[in-house]
Amino acid sequence: MVAELEPVETRPSLRERTRIVIFEADTPAGRAFDVALFSLILGSVIAVMMESVAAVRAAHGPWLRATEWVVTALFTVEYGVRLWCVREPFRYARSFFGVVDLLAILPTYLSLVLPGSQSLLTIRALRLLRIFRVLKLSHFLGDANLLLSALRSGRRKVLVFLGTLLVLALILGSAMHLVEGPTHGFTSIPRSVYWAIVTMTTVGYGDITPQTLPGQILAAGIMILGYSIIAVPTGIFTAEIVAQWRRPVSTRTCPACLTEGHDPKARYCKDCGAPLTGE
Amino acid sequence: MVAELEPVETRPSLRERTRIVIFEADTPAGRAFDVALFSLILGSVIAVMMESVAAVRAAHGPWLRATEWVVTALFTVEYGVRLWCVREPFRYARSFFGVVDLLAILPTYLSLVLPGSQSLLTIRALRLLRIFRVLKLSHFLGDANLLLSALRSGRRKVLVFLGTLLVLALILGSAMHLVEGPTHGFTSIPRSVYWAIVTMTTVGYGDITPQTLPGQILAAGIMILGYSIIAVPTGIFTAEIVAQWRRPVSTRTCPACLTEGHDPKARYCKDCGAPLTGE
Amino acid sequence: MVAELEPVETRPSLRERTRIVIFEADTPAGRAFDVALFSLILGSVIAVMMESVAAVRAAHGPWLRATEWVVTALFTVEYGVRLWCVREPFRYARSFFGVVDLLAILPTYLSLVLPGSQSLLTIRALRLLRIFRVLKLSHFLGDANLLLSALRSGRRKVLVFLGTLLVLALILGSAMHLVEGPTHGFTSIPRSVYWAIVTMTTVGYGDITPQTLPGQILAAGIMILGYSIIAVPTGIFTAEIVAQWRRPVSTRTCPACLTEGHDPKARYCKDCGAPLTGE
Amino acid sequence: MVAELEPVETRPSLRERTRIVIFEADTPAGRAFDVALFSLILGSVIAVMMESVAAVRAAHGPWLRATEWVVTALFTVEYGVRLWCVREPFRYARSFFGVVDLLAILPTYLSLVLPGSQSLLTIRALRLLRIFRVLKLSHFLGDANLLLSALRSGRRKVLVFLGTLLVLALILGSAMHLVEGPTHGFTSIPRSVYWAIVTMTTVGYGDITPQTLPGQILAAGIMILGYSIIAVPTGIFTAEIVAQWRRPVSTRTCPACLTEGHDPKARYCKDCGAPLTGE
Repeated sequence: MVAELEPVETRPSLRERTRIVIFEADTPAGRAFDVALFSLILGSVIAVMMESVAAVRAAHGPWLRATEWVVTALFTVEYGVRLWCVREPFRYARSFFGVVDLLAILPTYLSLVLPGSQSLLTIRALRLLRIFRVLKLSHFLGDANLLLSALRSGRRKVLVFLGTLLVLALILGSAMHLVEGPTHGFTSIPRSVYWAIVTMTTVGYGDITPQTLPGQILAAGIMILGYSIIAVPTGIFTAEIVAQWRRPVSTRTCPACLTEGHDPKARYCKDCGAPLTGE
Repeated sequence: MVAELEPVETRPSLRERTRIVIFEADTPAGRAFDVALFSLILGSVIAVMMESVAAVRAAHGPWLRATEWVVTALFTVEYGVRLWCVREPFRYARSFFGVVDLLAILPTYLSLVLPGSQSLLTIRALRLLRIFRVLKLSHFLGDANLLLSALRSGRRKVLVFLGTLLVLALILGSAMHLVEGPTHGFTSIPRSVYWAIVTMTTVGYGDITPQTLPGQILAAGIMILGYSIIAVPTGIFTAEIVAQWRRPVSTRTCPACLTEGHDPKARYCKDCGAPLTGE
Repeated sequence: MVAELEPVETRPSLRERTRIVIFEADTPAGRAFDVALFSLILGSVIAVMMESVAAVRAAHGPWLRATEWVVTALFTVEYGVRLWCVREPFRYARSFFGVVDLLAILPTYLSLVLPGSQSLLTIRALRLLRIFRVLKLSHFLGDANLLLSALRSGRRKVLVFLGTLLVLALILGSAMHLVEGPTHGFTSIPRSVYWAIVTMTTVGYGDITPQTLPGQILAAGIMILGYSIIAVPTGIFTAEIVAQWRRPVSTRTCPACLTEGHDPKARYCKDCGAPLTGE
Repeated sequence: MVAELEPVETRPSLRERTRIVIFEADTPAGRAFDVALFSLILGSVIAVMMESVAAVRAAHGPWLRATEWVVTALFTVEYGVRLWCVREPFRYARSFFGVVDLLAILPTYLSLVLPGSQSLLTIRALRLLRIFRVLKLSHFLGDANLLLSALRSGRRKVLVFLGTLLVLALILGSAMHLVEGPTHGFTSIPRSVYWAIVTMTTVGYGDITPQTLPGQILAAGIMILGYSIIAVPTGIFTAEIVAQWRRPVSTRTCPACLTEGHDPKARYCKDCGAPLTGE
C-alpha cells in the first residue's frame, strides 16, 4: 500500500551485463549462453571419450586433440570472464562449480607434462550438472535440494553404517582367507577383503569364488548378511525423505515471546501463555 | 427420489455394437473378445520366440512364418476395425495402445524389406498389458494407476538422480581407465564407463574386473557407492507411495457443531450426532 | 458378572489327548513332541542333502537310504495319526501344512518307480517352518502374520509389477537379440530374454555379455532400468507394512446399528447418530 | 537457586585417574589416548594385511612379525591396565568391547602353536569401532543406538524372513539339482543350494549357471523371487526406523482444562494458557 520510491533505472555496466548473461538463466541471453555452454561441454566430453578408443584415435587423433585444445582455450577464457564479472571472485573460486570449472581445464595443460592425463578431462562431465539450471530450474533445483538435504541429515547415520560395513568386510574377508586359503584365489587378506566387498554389495563378479564346502557356507552367510544390510541405507534415506515431507508444525509466531513451532491447532502460546493469533 | 424420464432405448448401430465388443470388457461378448485376443497375442509372441531358436526354425520354419502372416493379417483387420468403429479415430491412433497396436503389425511387413526384423514382433508383448483389463479390471487398473502416478510425481527427482548417476559413472569409469589401463580390459573410456555402470548397479558380470591393488580399492569404493545410492530411488518411490496413500479426510463441516475431520462416508457428525450434508 | 455353569471336567479320550500332544505346543508333552519332530525333519533333510554328494553316497549310500526309509515310515505313521485324531480330517488334509506333510513322504515311495526323485525329499524342509510354533510361538506367528498380510494386501500391485517386468524383459531381450546377434551369445530370443532377466534383477552371471558398443549402451540402459525398478516392490511392501502398523480406528461397535470403524475420539455413531459407549 | 554444598575436591587416586584417561573421551588426556590407540590399531591391522601378501612377506616379513609382537605386547599391557583400573572388572571383561580387547591379542599367542592363525588378528578391526567415541561422540553414539534399536526391534521379523529364505533356497536348489543335473555344474544338493543363495541374493557369481531351457526358466523365476523379497528386510527396517522417529508427545495433562498432547518442552497449556507442571 505504501508507494515505494523506485531507484532511477540506469543502464548497467558491461561487467554487470556479462554477469547476468553468464550466471543467470532467466533472461533469453542467459538461457542461450547456458544451452551453448551445455552443448560445448557435452561435445568435448564425447570427444575425450572417443579419443580413448584406439581405432578412433588412429583415424582422427590429431583432429580430436585440436578440438580439445580449442575447447580448453574457450573454457579458460570463460573461467577468466567469470572471475572478472562476478561480485565476489574468491567466493566463486571456492564454490563447488568454481572448483569444477577450474578442474575442467587443468588436465589439458597437465597433459603437456604428463601424457595420458587427458583422461581426467571427463571431469568436465561434472559441469553437465548445470543442466538442472537450464531445464525448468526451480523445480529441479528444489528436488535436488530435497535429495541433498535428506542425504546431509542422514550423513552421520550413513557414516556409522559404512564404518561398520568396512570392519565387517575386513573380518569376514580375513576369515575367508583362512578358510579357503591361497590356492583358491584368496591369495592375500587385501584380495579377500576385496572379495568380501564384491560379495556384500551383491555385485558378484565371479573372478574369485569359494571352492570348498566350508567356504561356500561362510560365503552364503556373507551374501545373506549383505543382502539384509542393504536395508540399512535404504531405510535411513527413506525415513529422511518421509521426514522432510512432513511439515506438521504451524508457522505462527507468538506475538508476546516470539516463540515458534506451535501446534497448528494451539490457541495459546505453549511457552508464555499469551493468546495466539492468525492461521 | 425424483423419477427421471428414461430415453427411448433404440437398437444401437452395427458400428456402435462393434465398438462395445472391442473396447468394453464388461459385456460377455467384450470379455470373450478380450480373452480370444489375449490368447492370439500370447500365441504369436511364443511363435516369434520359437522361430528365433535355430533348431526349431530348421524343423518348423515355414509353418511358423505362415502363422506369423496369418496373425499379422488378423491384427491388421482388427486395427482397421478399431479405427472404423471408435468415435475419435485420431485420438485412438495417438494413444498408447493405438501406437502399440500399429507397431504390433509393422515388423512383419518390414521383414519383406529387411530380413531379420521380425524379432521386433515381440513388441506385440506390450499388447499383453491389456490383460489387466480382462482380469478384475477396476482393481488392477486402480493399482496400476497408483503405481503410475507415484512414478509420475517422483519423475523429476528420478531424473535428477539418473543424471547424477550417469555423470558419476562417466568420471569414475575414466578414473578406472587411468588406474587400470588398457592391459587389464579397461581398453577405452566408453568401455570403462560401461564397467562402472555394471558395477554401480551391482549387476557385476565379471567380464571386466580390476586386477591391480589401487584398481581394486577404487572399485570397492565404487561398489559401496552404488550399493548406497540404490537407496535413493527406493526412498523416493516409497515416500511417493506413502504420500499417495494418505487418505484425505472429508472436508465437510458439521452444520450443528462445526466439527471437522469426518470420515468421507460418514452420515452423522461423530461429535454431536447431527446429520451431515453434502459430498 | 453372570456366574457361568462350568462343565464337569472329564478325562479326555485317547484321541483327544493325542490331538493335544500333536497339534498344541503349549503343554510339556506337545512341546517335547514338536522338538523331537523338528530334530527328525532337520536330520532327514541333512541326510537327503548328504546323499546327493557323490563322495558321501559312495561311502555311506546304503546307510543313508535306510535312514530315509525309516524316517518316511515314521512320517507316514504320523500323517495317519494326525488324520485320525484331528476333528476335521479333510480340512487338515487340505490345509497348507496338511499338504506339506503328505508331500514330505511321497517322494520316497515315488523313488521306487522313478529313481532320482528322492531329491524332491527336500520339500520336507517346508515342515521346518513349524519351528515358529516351537519358539516363543505367539510372537513369531504374529510377526509372520504381519508379513503375510502385508504381502497379501500388496499382492495385486506386485502382480501388476511382475507382469510389466516380464513384458519389458521380453521386449528388451528381443532388442538385444537384434543388436548383438547370435555370434555374441544371444543365440535366440528365449536366451536373450533370460539374459535380460539376469540383468534387470542385477544378478549378472556374466555367462552372456554384450560385446559391441551399441549392445553395451543398450545393456547399460537395461541395468539402470532394473536398478531403478527394484524400488517398486520395496516401495509397495514398505508402504504396506507402515500401513499395517497404523491402527487408528477404534474397535468400538455402535450399539444401535453395529457399524464399526469409528474414530477413536468419536462420541456419536457416524452412521446412525446414536451415542457411542465405552473406550 | 539453592546453593549446593560442594564436596571437598580431593585429588583422585592413580587408579581413578588412569580409568578416566582410558575410559573417558572428554578430557584432553582421554582424547589423546583414544587417538593414539586408534592409530596403533589401524597400523597393526594394516601390518597384518600386508604380511598376508606374499611379495611383501618375502621382503619385510621379519620386520612385520616384530611389529605384530610389539603391538600385541602393548595391547596385553593395556588389557591388564583396563582390568585393573575399571570399577567392575568382570562386567568389563564380559562386555562387547572387553571380549573384543581380549580377542585382539589371543591370535598372536595362538600363532606360536598354530602357524597361520595370525590372519585372525584382523579381528582387531572391531576395536576400530571405538572411533565413534573419538569423533563427536554423543551424536554418533545416538545414531548407532538408533540403528541398533531399530535392528533389535525388527529382529524377530528378520529371523522369520531369514528362516523362510533358507527353506526356499533349500527347496529351489534341490529342484535345480533335479532339472539341470550334475553335468551342468549342479553336482550335489549342497552345491545347488549354494547356487540358489548366490542367485536369490542377486550376487550372481556365474561360477555355476543353468544351461538348459527348463533350468533357465526356473532360474529366471528364482531371480525374480529373490529380487522381490529383497523388499522384505528393507520394508521391515524402514518401518522400524520410521516408528523410532515418531516423537512421543508428552503425557502431561493440563491441570486446568485437562487437555493432552502437549509438546514435551511446553510450559503453558496450548489450549487454555494455564501453566503446565511436571516432566
